[in-house]
Amino acid sequence: MADYKAPVKDMQFVLDNISRMPQLATTERFADATPDMVSAILEEAGRVAAEVIAPTNEIGDQQGLTLEDGRVGIPQEFGQAYQQFAEGGWGSLQFDPEYGGQGLPYSLSIPVMEMWQAANMAWGLCPLLSQGAVEALYLNANDELKNRYLPQLISGEWTGTMNLTEPNAGSDLSVVRSKAEPEGDHYRITGQKIFITWGDHEMAENIIHLVLARLPGAPEGVRGISLFVVPKFLVNDDGSLGERNDVQVASIEHKLGIHASPTCVMAFGEKEGAIGYLVGEEGKGLACMFTMMNNARLAVGLQGVAISERAYQQALWYAGDRTQGKAVGHKEAGPILRHPDVRRMLMTMKALTEAGRALTYDACASLDFAHSSEDAAQAKLEKARAAYLTPIVKGWCTEFAQEVTSLGVQVHGGMGYIEETGAAQHYRDARILPIYEGTNGIQALDLVGRKTLVDQGQAATALMSEMRATVEAAAGSARFASAAQALAAALDVAQASTDKLLATGDDPLFSASSAYNYMMLMGTVCGAWELLRAALAAEQQQAGGDNDPYLESKQLTALFYVDQILPRHLAYAPMADAGSEAILAASDEHLESAFS
Amino acid sequence: MADYKAPVKDMQFVLDNISRMPQLATTERFADATPDMVSAILEEAGRVAAEVIAPTNEIGDQQGLTLEDGRVGIPQEFGQAYQQFAEGGWGSLQFDPEYGGQGLPYSLSIPVMEMWQAANMAWGLCPLLSQGAVEALYLNANDELKNRYLPQLISGEWTGTMNLTEPNAGSDLSVVRSKAEPEGDHYRITGQKIFITWGDHEMAENIIHLVLARLPGAPEGVRGISLFVVPKFLVNDDGSLGERNDVQVASIEHKLGIHASPTCVMAFGEKEGAIGYLVGEEGKGLACMFTMMNNARLAVGLQGVAISERAYQQALWYAGDRTQGKAVGHKEAGPILRHPDVRRMLMTMKALTEAGRALTYDACASLDFAHSSEDAAQAKLEKARAAYLTPIVKGWCTEFAQEVTSLGVQVHGGMGYIEETGAAQHYRDARILPIYEGTNGIQALDLVGRKTLVDQGQAATALMSEMRATVEAAAGSARFASAAQALAAALDVAQASTDKLLATGDDPLFSASSAYNYMMLMGTVCGAWELLRAALAAEQQQAGGDNDPYLESKQLTALFYVDQILPRHLAYAPMADAGSEAILAASDEHLESAFS
Repeated sequence: MADYKAPVKDMQFVLDNISRMPQLATTERFADATPDMVSAILEEAGRVAAEVIAPTNEIGDQQGLTLEDGRVGIPQEFGQAYQQFAEGGWGSLQFDPEYGGQGLPYSLSIPVMEMWQAANMAWGLCPLLSQGAVEALYLNANDELKNRYLPQLISGEWTGTMNLTEPNAGSDLSVVRSKAEPEGDHYRITGQKIFITWGDHEMAENIIHLVLARLPGAPEGVRGISLFVVPKFLVNDDGSLGERNDVQVASIEHKLGIHASPTCVMAFGEKEGAIGYLVGEEGKGLACMFTMMNNARLAVGLQGVAISERAYQQALWYAGDRTQGKAVGHKEAGPILRHPDVRRMLMTMKALTEAGRALTYDACASLDFAHSSEDAAQAKLEKARAAYLTPIVKGWCTEFAQEVTSLGVQVHGGMGYIEETGAAQHYRDARILPIYEGTNGIQALDLVGRKTLVDQGQAATALMSEMRATVEAAAGSARFASAAQALAAALDVAQASTDKLLATGDDPLFSASSAYNYMMLMGTVCGAWELLRAALAAEQQQAGGDNDPYLESKQLTALFYVDQILPRHLAYAPMADAGSEAILAASDEHLESAFS
Repeated sequence: MADYKAPVKDMQFVLDNISRMPQLATTERFADATPDMVSAILEEAGRVAAEVIAPTNEIGDQQGLTLEDGRVGIPQEFGQAYQQFAEGGWGSLQFDPEYGGQGLPYSLSIPVMEMWQAANMAWGLCPLLSQGAVEALYLNANDELKNRYLPQLISGEWTGTMNLTEPNAGSDLSVVRSKAEPEGDHYRITGQKIFITWGDHEMAENIIHLVLARLPGAPEGVRGISLFVVPKFLVNDDGSLGERNDVQVASIEHKLGIHASPTCVMAFGEKEGAIGYLVGEEGKGLACMFTMMNNARLAVGLQGVAISERAYQQALWYAGDRTQGKAVGHKEAGPILRHPDVRRMLMTMKALTEAGRALTYDACASLDFAHSSEDAAQAKLEKARAAYLTPIVKGWCTEFAQEVTSLGVQVHGGMGYIEETGAAQHYRDARILPIYEGTNGIQALDLVGRKTLVDQGQAATALMSEMRATVEAAAGSARFASAAQALAAALDVAQASTDKLLATGDDPLFSASSAYNYMMLMGTVCGAWELLRAALAAEQQQAGGDNDPYLESKQLTALFYVDQILPRHLAYAPMADAGSEAILAASDEHLESAFS
């Protein structure tokens, strides 16, 4: 099985040339993010990911979890890895120094987070969710709650969870039924939550649950939902741990993948009611959660990139190692990566992964600029840019992660179907990504609705203007002029589909039917754009005398994408433009008429 | 979990209107295949598949296999199901009455085989492989071997296997190393074979292994390979079972899916050498196997259709059962199949499955016409048609099976990732299909090489002429005129890509690089054509006064495909036409330059 090596060179290149890290480092707030500091962090995180975390991946998949006497048992190696992660301060990079964070850019924490997810996605979900809990508390809780919970969450001594879903409240959270009864300075929470990632474990001392519930007499629907913090162990005023709270794991799920990530059914308040504290205002629970969910959606897109990278490295290693057949143009049998179709698969994996990485990092950088810019108008634009890109990052990167991990299996031939090879684990693990943190159907609706129709296409237009600028820059390069033409043509198509979407804005069936293909259209085009931007920067550095093969590879990867992936927009666009008629014409009876 | 119901109505309709069963029944050879007989067989097979086989599917997945003392243990329910299958004569439909077969058309055995594969793919592989063994022996063995082995293989008392692959001989069988030493009237076989499906079990009395091996002094490469029949138990002259042969299961694989199909490492001749008998001529082993492998490839495409149907039924059941959110245009929360994006997913599953079914049955029908036509020229055309369609059926139907089973998971949301739901099993099971019986990369090379370049596009042109005829017929229908235009445009694109392929026939790097996308292009266009043919037939029957909702559904499914699936050809074509440059430009060093 292939080891994991963090693609530090690509990460650094994207930070420098796509996500504007040098510019960010000129702001007072992020002055610490010097090139040396960035490089040192990536190198050291890469070492920890490769040496400490990655070796636990297969162990977790094979060994899975236990539930005995209400306690979740995880592989021993996970706890050891977590210990090193926490001691290294890896969970604190982007957080406020007031609570023990390192005050570094969010967009610098992103490649580091990618490494954990690539090294071991099941394990990596624990820090990922904890960071979400930090964000939700930091942005919404009062000072007392922040002081009580943030330092240990940021240090990694404690971990956090998100408790949203209930058996009848999944994509539609408006029907959440968990209850919160006021009692003095706190509330008593009762109810059942499902699909709670890392809902219980013992690799940290305490677990801080963020829980959506309804106050007595709260209105129906989303406006009746409030957010509460419910610790596994109550926290005394001096910060020491007090009594066990009334929250229990009822069961854990038997899943297709991420076997060692405990997905729990959580029972709150089966005895006297779990003690919880209100976060933010009453009735604003969903809004509080959304501030955190947007970042979580970017993080899930990042997981798509991460597992694609891992699958690519595994497939590349196998294709270089396995000898089978004489490839066209070769006289001797040799490694299978010589065969054009195997190379097509590997290049597809590489190009999608690198395009997704650039797009994800870029979207995250906009959040940093939104928070650090002193120009309010500019900050607003950056915020809208990040908001527009978020569903594309989550949706498109997690869709291509299915393709990339499947190609990873395919490159292995028959060995890919054997679990011991390791390719199949990535394929199984990746399958959760289009589902959680809002299914990709929900992402697509978010993109066409809140992010396009609501602002009448402003964010889309702004992004396409950026892309046009790249086209113009590329038109001046002999090597990329024809790629620039291809991207320009694709932008015309994307613009026309956007116009059609806006023109039919009064027909919600149209946008709901088109949404998925429109999201894939925009993702495909954005991917070409980001790779072309990167290729132009690489070309320039190469012209400056740098002969690193990475720079040549970056340019070849962009050219491959334009030839072999960008044409997909020609399919997505007419599928999006076709609207709802053919999709909705068949009745329920028609759907089952062939077999009933 | 959803039950499986055989889609008898669609199967019957495709047999009648696509695969020319009524015409076949006018031949003397297939005079028995009357409408009543066909209908009775489909109904009864559907009952057995639903009631006897389908309930074993989840059991097999959960329970898996054991290997103790060299004996493979399978779920008890599998043996009981197999008993009923054999007693019903279900393995004998299409075989020669001289050996106990029922002499029915091969293309009638296809829907029946689809049912077994949909009901339980892991189990269904056993009869599928046995039928392949029957074909190989029937076409290549001498009378003595046929008389000794065929009756019990056809009756299902014994089962059969294909032993081709070795650790270093997978896609490239020319390097097979197993040996056969002559000894009197038989040979002593030694060697190790891997990935042997149903290589051992005890649900039948005997297992007949077909084994590729080399005679002493045989030339290197494919011309040195011969085919042998090696029974698990030797067969006495009176047909009774004799001694145990020297063939053992060395191990079984731990796989991503089809958990209850024993995938065995087989050790031949570890003691005194396994006794085997030559099938066909010396040095013609691969040719003998290929006669059987072509049918096996059609059967694997059929498995893609089958598991897609199963995944569709599961998803449709869930989407009708699960309530979540108010769909656009509805005032109350209701089943999720009301949501346009869920409906888009369900319709995509349905349309691909039905398109693949029609294409697969149609290809199989050509084999029947090739064998039964009294006109030699016509027979030759039918044979070439089947040969051309075979890699498309295998490649395209198994590719879309990945998409359909993945959509099946997606429709379930979070529940799709939980193994107990059942959607994930179909997804895991389906993943073997693009790999075995020749990877889809091999299928694509077969399509562009042997099936297109070698005959200078004759088979492709003939098929496209058939498609043009359908376009003309559809142009006369008000309902389908615009679909006809879309198909005509797609045919122009397919023709242009075919021309380009032929024009670059002297550049093997071009065809090897284009092959996969060309195969997907042709599959996508063929699917639209078959559904349009079916829709026109349905429209006509409807006009004749038949109000069965199935007929309306058939037409709506074709219109959906034209809107929402056919546009994919617009992506496949430029990707195929782009050739090898971008695919092969990156060096091995470039491929790993981002992380090393």
